[in-house]
Amino acid sequence: MAAVTAPDPVELAQRLIRCPSVTPAEGGALDELETVLGGLGFRCTRLTFTEPGTADVANLYARIGTGSPHIAFAGHTDVVPVGDTAAWSVDPFGGQRVGDEVIGRGAVDMKGAIAAFVAAVGRLLEERGGDPGGSISFLITGDEEGPSINGTRKLLEWMQAEGEQPEMCVVGEPTSEAALGDTIKVGRRGSLTARLTVHGTQGHTAYPHKADNPVHHLTRALRRLIDEPIDDGSSHFEPSQLQITSVDVGNPAHNVIPASATATLNVRFNDRHTSDHVLGWIRARVHAETTNFELTPRISGESFLSPPGALTDALAAAVQEVTGRTPALGTGGGTSDARFIKDLCPVAELGLRNATAHQVDERTTTQELRELCAIDHAALRRLLAP
Amino acid sequence: MAAVTAPDPVELAQRLIRCPSVTPAEGGALDELETVLGGLGFRCTRLTFTEPGTADVANLYARIGTGSPHIAFAGHTDVVPVGDTAAWSVDPFGGQRVGDEVIGRGAVDMKGAIAAFVAAVGRLLEERGGDPGGSISFLITGDEEGPSINGTRKLLEWMQAEGEQPEMCVVGEPTSEAALGDTIKVGRRGSLTARLTVHGTQGHTAYPHKADNPVHHLTRALRRLIDEPIDDGSSHFEPSQLQITSVDVGNPAHNVIPASATATLNVRFNDRHTSDHVLGWIRARVHAETTNFELTPRISGESFLSPPGALTDALAAAVQEVTGRTPALGTGGGTSDARFIKDLCPVAELGLRNATAHQVDERTTTQELRELCAIDHAALRRLLAP
Repeated sequence: MAAVTAPDPVELAQRLIRCPSVTPAEGGALDELETVLGGLGFRCTRLTFTEPGTADVANLYARIGTGSPHIAFAGHTDVVPVGDTAAWSVDPFGGQRVGDEVIGRGAVDMKGAIAAFVAAVGRLLEERGGDPGGSISFLITGDEEGPSINGTRKLLEWMQAEGEQPEMCVVGEPTSEAALGDTIKVGRRGSLTARLTVHGTQGHTAYPHKADNPVHHLTRALRRLIDEPIDDGSSHFEPSQLQITSVDVGNPAHNVIPASATATLNVRFNDRHTSDHVLGWIRARVHAETTNFELTPRISGESFLSPPGALTDALAAAVQEVTGRTPALGTGGGTSDARFIKDLCPVAELGLRNATAHQVDERTTTQELRELCAIDHAALRRLLAP
Repeated sequence: MAAVTAPDPVELAQRLIRCPSVTPAEGGALDELETVLGGLGFRCTRLTFTEPGTADVANLYARIGTGSPHIAFAGHTDVVPVGDTAAWSVDPFGGQRVGDEVIGRGAVDMKGAIAAFVAAVGRLLEERGGDPGGSISFLITGDEEGPSINGTRKLLEWMQAEGEQPEMCVVGEPTSEAALGDTIKVGRRGSLTARLTVHGTQGHTAYPHKADNPVHHLTRALRRLIDEPIDDGSSHFEPSQLQITSVDVGNPAHNVIPASATATLNVRFNDRHTSDHVLGWIRARVHAETTNFELTPRISGESFLSPPGALTDALAAAVQEVTGRTPALGTGGGTSDARFIKDLCPVAELGLRNATAHQVDERTTTQELRELCAIDHAALRRLLAP
């Protein structure tokens, strides 16, 4: 077996940032990873998934080894748009290092975490003469920041068809809050959006007794929805949260009582509920104020918990070894592709500090990239056969 | 003095309806009245008022007699648009009679009432050989259904400058509800519209603790405003009423907590309040929920009561004499030009049934027109010197 050389996590992160892979563009990022992983001995498969009405998306599956245990890393090279380029202190796709900082779109979400994991795998293969002691695979997708249709979901279907079955999976989302490694995510809240439309009877404001103001019914219904907690949380989850994101009546006539009124609700719910259960909770409270309403939901994802076990133990021990910190096992924040992977195998998320994700001057530090690489390396040593 | 001939109220109403005087167009309606009133011996003055940014408006002041008592009638010949012409059963400007009904735009609001009063004056002058026994004047304006800038308000300024000072004034608005004469209006509620904007802190719905949702503050503030009565009415007024006519956030992103939220409130308030007092009442209740808000008011009119007295006594006795009904002295409904006239002299409003005002197939009956003419005639006989 040929000798392998581990890439430097900082330099690899910079090279990936230089690929302008605004979702769903590939931007050369998968080419770069294919080259590096190929050099480490991985078998790489490029997979472009398509669906009518959506953009084609390029993805990469790479694996080294054939045996067990099979440890997977899942990540995405697509990034959110840069916004106002003039507001950035550097070229967002320059991959620039300014002092100890690496600044650019995707630095923390999540090209930095991909670079750290690839470098950690490289170091392990260096130590072990190219044999991981089991299998390692990379699931790298290109539309996590977009509609999430032609990425992880279809890659997992393809893996199932091919008999590719990891035993556990690390997702590189930026889970760290105040300090690197302080949070490992073991699940996510569910998310749903619902349009609530209340109907009434139009009329003149001078004669309200001849009308039935739907805005008044809606106001009372919304007050019920925000004043009563949905629950008080569960062992791994915060309390479920309902936010009214918009109310839209659009009545330009100040002397007319409108015929209907609509609000938009967004709910992040924990593992005590299904989305159906949350919708029932909402309906019951609106129904206490009016029967003349419609609730039109869109489910972004159900809540899930990937129960802590060998994977979280290994990651927590690695964080402790490298940083001295004891990570919390959290479930907060938005959704990620972990919601699809949890059906395949135990999954946990660990990555860089998320403070600048999606923002202008998104950035990490060389120290944090090297420490995350060391954590990934220490975790892989624990999880793979010695 | 030449003999005068009273016009027929039904025929005059039909002729006025045939003038297409959609506000602010004159449409020939003032020409028609000038001819008829001139024939009865009135001195007519046509007054066109202008103001930058508004349409020029034609008005008519006509007076007969020079002595006291001086009884005025105020009305408007402008009408609201017809809406969907195809929905009408007749030409809205055809002045058509179908059986006992007179159908057309303005039939009840308020060309019919003008025709009835002119005919009543004609009958009185016939009886009295052209001498009214005091003075009668007509204040006929052309933008009551519009912005009300170049009509009654400026006509009253002109009258003041000319020393024209009526002692009491009847306004011909359609005040009757179920039956002709059942309601005389002796005041109006005030009306104000206010935009309430609540500010918060924008953020992601997944992290509501990092944001401050203005929609939630607004919802709680609005709930306070609609759940607490402003008052319980006064001797001549219904309770004041607040209606939320619109709520507009306009946030298209279901995962974003918006930065601000706006509602529009319309308040009809009685003589227990000034508009300033109502705004203070609103501010105090919003302030109980949030301090970060703006309230931008537009005052359409203050509430007023023209205390019942000789004028309402004469009108009520006339209604009783002609119809057998005892009218209620009301203050409900929308605003009218009486709000300007009340500063000049005691004012009361009496007119046709308002059920079809502003609607398709606006209509009255020949019987109602003749009865209103008889009421006006009986009232004038009581009010003027014998």
